[in-house]
Amino acid sequence: MKILLVGASGTLGRAIAERLAPKHQILAAGRSSADYPVDITDDASVEALFARTGKLDAIVSAAGVLHFGPLPEMRPEQFAIGLNDKLLGQVRLALLGQHHLNDGGSITLTSGIVADEPIRAGANASAVNRALEGFVQGAACELQRGLRINVVSPTLLTESLEAYGDFFPGFGTVTAAQAALAYQRSVEGVQSGRVYKVW
Amino acid sequence: MKILLVGASGTLGRAIAERLAPKHQILAAGRSSADYPVDITDDASVEALFARTGKLDAIVSAAGVLHFGPLPEMRPEQFAIGLNDKLLGQVRLALLGQHHLNDGGSITLTSGIVADEPIRAGANASAVNRALEGFVQGAACELQRGLRINVVSPTLLTESLEAYGDFFPGFGTVTAAQAALAYQRSVEGVQSGRVYKVW
Repeated sequence: MKILLVGASGTLGRAIAERLAPKHQILAAGRSSADYPVDITDDASVEALFARTGKLDAIVSAAGVLHFGPLPEMRPEQFAIGLNDKLLGQVRLALLGQHHLNDGGSITLTSGIVADEPIRAGANASAVNRALEGFVQGAACELQRGLRINVVSPTLLTESLEAYGDFFPGFGTVTAAQAALAYQRSVEGVQSGRVYKVW
Repeated sequence: MKILLVGASGTLGRAIAERLAPKHQILAAGRSSADYPVDITDDASVEALFARTGKLDAIVSAAGVLHFGPLPEMRPEQFAIGLNDKLLGQVRLALLGQHHLNDGGSITLTSGIVADEPIRAGANASAVNRALEGFVQGAACELQRGLRINVVSPTLLTESLEAYGDFFPGFGTVTAAQAALAYQRSVEGVQSGRVYKVW
């Protein structure tokens, strides 16, 4: 398959690329990608990306920024960061991308465990991740031409334990390579509207 | 209690007011309210509202606009309508409102059954309603001074059956008066972080 991977240079993105590369053609996109640069918060940038890629068999996103901060100090414009980036950015990839997929193609987005398990300073993450899961379950019912859509919700990555572990007391971790399996299931499998929880 | 009710002139809002009025002081706010006008998409408008109300014991929101439309034609800017209005608008009431509540006060927002049960043309509604539930469950863990926050998720209202029934084939309905009970439970009860499903 010809697979567009957005967020390819991140910890998770690199593991997904490694997992899928042996059997597929991977187009590695991201903010700082040389070949496939994209700003997912911008319609024109995303459309330019799809013009560059041509028709695809799968779109995989491991991209998006959230706001983390204590609720008593949180401002609406901070909350909007996650809405405009991780949420609407990934939704944009799906809404615009559906028209650039071959019949039977798939879209796989990324949420996260904070959708189900709130953490300190994580109200924006809980909302955004939950929204992505709602979007995917709604969109799966309406996609045409046999297109599928799923979302992967990983727990804290083992590779991120040192940086973010303090926000996830008592949470188990999985390696990025373990999380990448769920993306393979989504891309190569037959299911749609699924939330793959990896924890 | 002194209760700010945003969206007071809607079908649901009127029923909530009727339910709460016998025991409480209701400040009826909304886009077209004469006494307490507010545009929930605007920080300054919401802050002006709280300046006008003074300290409150409860904030109840039955307000917010969503985008409904077929997924194959949906554009990111249409999806953003629900994010900026029903989602961020209600989150704004909570984030700014937390500082205008007396100790032990409560915030009650409104999601909807499409969070759990996708419908045709409802991908934006599924995402926004699910996000509100994630926000409430995250925020409940971090509110200070004994503040509580909940969200009510009603099914289609009996009063809205004629207008929207075609989008909800086989869904049961509840009257706005039945849904209003959940708001009373949230305001007068002790729970926090709850999604009250009324269907």
